[in-house]
Amino acid sequence: MSTVASHAIPAKRQYDAIVVGAGSGGLTVAVGLGRFDRQVLLVERKHMGGDCTNTGCVPSKSLLHVSRQVGGTIDEAAPALRWVRKRRDQLRDREVEEFGGAEGITFVYGTARLSSSRTVAVTAPDGTTWSAEADNIILATGSSARRVPIPGLPDECYLTNDELFELDEPPGHLAIVGAGAVGTEMALAFRRLGSEVTLIEAGESVLPAVLPEASRLLAEALVEQGVDIRAGTLATGYDPDSAALELGPSSGSGSVTGQVSGVDKVLVAVGRTPNTAGLGLTEIGVDLDHSGAVEIDARGRTSVNGVWALGDATTRGGATHFASTWGRRIIQSIVHPLLPIGAEPLRPAVVFTEPELATIGRQPAEVPSDVVRLTVDGSQIDRTYTDEIERSLLVVDVRSPTGEVLGATVVSPRAGEIIATFSLAMKTGVGFHRWYRTVIPYPTHAELITVAVESYLTEVADDFPGHLARWVGGLPPRVKGRFLRR
Amino acid sequence: MSTVASHAIPAKRQYDAIVVGAGSGGLTVAVGLGRFDRQVLLVERKHMGGDCTNTGCVPSKSLLHVSRQVGGTIDEAAPALRWVRKRRDQLRDREVEEFGGAEGITFVYGTARLSSSRTVAVTAPDGTTWSAEADNIILATGSSARRVPIPGLPDECYLTNDELFELDEPPGHLAIVGAGAVGTEMALAFRRLGSEVTLIEAGESVLPAVLPEASRLLAEALVEQGVDIRAGTLATGYDPDSAALELGPSSGSGSVTGQVSGVDKVLVAVGRTPNTAGLGLTEIGVDLDHSGAVEIDARGRTSVNGVWALGDATTRGGATHFASTWGRRIIQSIVHPLLPIGAEPLRPAVVFTEPELATIGRQPAEVPSDVVRLTVDGSQIDRTYTDEIERSLLVVDVRSPTGEVLGATVVSPRAGEIIATFSLAMKTGVGFHRWYRTVIPYPTHAELITVAVESYLTEVADDFPGHLARWVGGLPPRVKGRFLRR
Repeated sequence: MSTVASHAIPAKRQYDAIVVGAGSGGLTVAVGLGRFDRQVLLVERKHMGGDCTNTGCVPSKSLLHVSRQVGGTIDEAAPALRWVRKRRDQLRDREVEEFGGAEGITFVYGTARLSSSRTVAVTAPDGTTWSAEADNIILATGSSARRVPIPGLPDECYLTNDELFELDEPPGHLAIVGAGAVGTEMALAFRRLGSEVTLIEAGESVLPAVLPEASRLLAEALVEQGVDIRAGTLATGYDPDSAALELGPSSGSGSVTGQVSGVDKVLVAVGRTPNTAGLGLTEIGVDLDHSGAVEIDARGRTSVNGVWALGDATTRGGATHFASTWGRRIIQSIVHPLLPIGAEPLRPAVVFTEPELATIGRQPAEVPSDVVRLTVDGSQIDRTYTDEIERSLLVVDVRSPTGEVLGATVVSPRAGEIIATFSLAMKTGVGFHRWYRTVIPYPTHAELITVAVESYLTEVADDFPGHLARWVGGLPPRVKGRFLRR
Repeated sequence: MSTVASHAIPAKRQYDAIVVGAGSGGLTVAVGLGRFDRQVLLVERKHMGGDCTNTGCVPSKSLLHVSRQVGGTIDEAAPALRWVRKRRDQLRDREVEEFGGAEGITFVYGTARLSSSRTVAVTAPDGTTWSAEADNIILATGSSARRVPIPGLPDECYLTNDELFELDEPPGHLAIVGAGAVGTEMALAFRRLGSEVTLIEAGESVLPAVLPEASRLLAEALVEQGVDIRAGTLATGYDPDSAALELGPSSGSGSVTGQVSGVDKVLVAVGRTPNTAGLGLTEIGVDLDHSGAVEIDARGRTSVNGVWALGDATTRGGATHFASTWGRRIIQSIVHPLLPIGAEPLRPAVVFTEPELATIGRQPAEVPSDVVRLTVDGSQIDRTYTDEIERSLLVVDVRSPTGEVLGATVVSPRAGEIIATFSLAMKTGVGFHRWYRTVIPYPTHAELITVAVESYLTEVADDFPGHLARWVGGLPPRVKGRFLRR
């Protein structure tokens, strides 16, 4: 244990802010307020770094990385799992040093409960209870894996992200329930480690929330890498004698039944539940929604003055980068309460499979009449050709004739970095007319953008009066969607 | 040979535009004007696709790609070199089909010479000469490798990018003169193919034009991968009997002399010479600079009305994406001459080594007094940790307190995509104050940006009146440059 973290009860009981939870959102706020010379008490129930460092992004990305180097035998895979844990623990120790000892921060382990809008009671690991006061209390308690019952499945076979990274060796056969980001990434990682992997999804395909053409590309990639995908399917039970996972159709009319035999472990990754129970929130008047998530406004304020919340525990959603962003909004609101906060942030999302799949904004199934949906097949850019990349795609929705970007989906080996460019452009209101003057370096994967911009602009500029007239008249824009490679 | 390309002389002799050179710049203009219903004659002396497709980006990136998969023996490397040629030829054929047959384009092989500002004389491959007329003539003739003499070196051992990709097998020992983009990329590729590689650079380090801290990281990476770097050094001669390349110091006071023995081939990559001789340019009054480059203005106009130029042949410089960008400016100027053209484009540059190194804007050695230079060590972002990336760096120059981004240098496995985000922001005038509200997805390599923005904004926002006062008073900004990981 680090020298800076402490199980001892601090003498100081008055702070400028108390942050409950030392995950990415809580750390952003604590460190940020500390930099602005605020005195901050940071209370963590379990592990510095929260889900991200301990049971989420860090071990999952480390595992995806190391799994690329493993030959697919259990002998090689067990050390890989140990390596992931070792790296994770090292990072956590580093974070305890760095953040626990950051200026203005008093870091303690313990379980927090709000006894008023200014008071937090902390139960230390040894059972002692003490309390502290502050003008601001920030709830950054995160979420837990939603546990759906699988009748017959023994506890030791039931995994969530909490247990997954504690495995000593990869299961011979891993079934994964839920093909969201966690499910698809871990399907790929464990397949590479040598596990047989069955990926079970109630929706129509993997990542059912993304556009079908993107989902299809990712499904193809997973199948090619040896993952057995069962879409439109639920895990309805488990027979321990035959180690068979029983399957049923996810909709009444479905016909997918049967079983998958020889399943050693089941990873359940079907969503998250906000960690808001036991915090005393409803008692002091903090509004929660039906799922238990804390209601917050655009500044991160709850219904109780002086109590703030962010990340997975809230109605505005989480994930590391989004929790950090809301953390910055809360810092600004506390330090400079009079500065305008601006529109709510856009939320890019990245699935770190191979290829990566990234999204931002909204792309409804039905394209609105004043919107052009441009689809760029990645085989139209040279980098996919030189690097033999089979799967690359950009689908971008642009309002015509203004050029405003409304949403984008990217499938590419570097989709995460490409969506960052969209995030900047969309947040700052830079439309395709201005992108046209921007130089995207050749031959990068980001050239997908150039192809889309050129296609859109050539058509619109070719008949700008016509586009304007159609727009004024409420008619759908006409873009033929021809593309120029390079 | 494709069905659409033709050595025959076209019956049509009057066009809206004649484009000389079918490289990336010429193709952009020809295809673009064709889309706008212009009749275009496209004349190519040698190969569709120009340097990029034939002797530049495409074969070099294909070689970098395939070299990753080669075990480092000549047996495996020779097929890799054949594969690169095959892929290159396939792409060229595809381009002949696609662009040679695009709407509005008449594509011919031949050597062009301007006999007036409206007339081009074409000498066909069979020696026949004919001519065509157009309102606009666009010069897109590119450049050739600059050939410096190396006394004693036999012709068959002297390579430029023209001959490099025609090798049947990698040389046992390849010396490369010039550690720019071509030199560093090919050093890496041939080292991976199994060649011994000596990289000779007259400047102080590899890529002498970039910031020393970035250059240093790349040099370390190349050395680690087995490249022998000799900086501050010139190749002064070659002794064919001992196959020794003789070295001398690049400056009078230098002490680097000696020789490298057993050198089989020497790749000379010390810059480019514009292809402007023999085109009849000075005869019709087109101004060239001292190096023979065509002088152009912000729209791509030469000193002669109706004659345009772009890319490597011009004073504004080239490379594929930049030539295409200028091509778009010329298209706009011809199709919509009254629309404003906007400020000159920024030129991102990427070196596709491992890690990649990318730059944009200006970063002078001496930081101006109103500019903050932020340096983000990539070990501060989580993706480098999960993926065990040792070399990652962002150096960005920001004007204080406006937040305007003036220049950036990125070293990262995905530097090319990251610099695209900077390109967009800088071209559209989005400064760090607005970036602060942008969500960069975690854990991507682009998180380097978040660290820089947070560091800048925390400091400036912390004491905005002070920053403003220092700015008004002409004093240097005070930014301590502390960073928050994540």
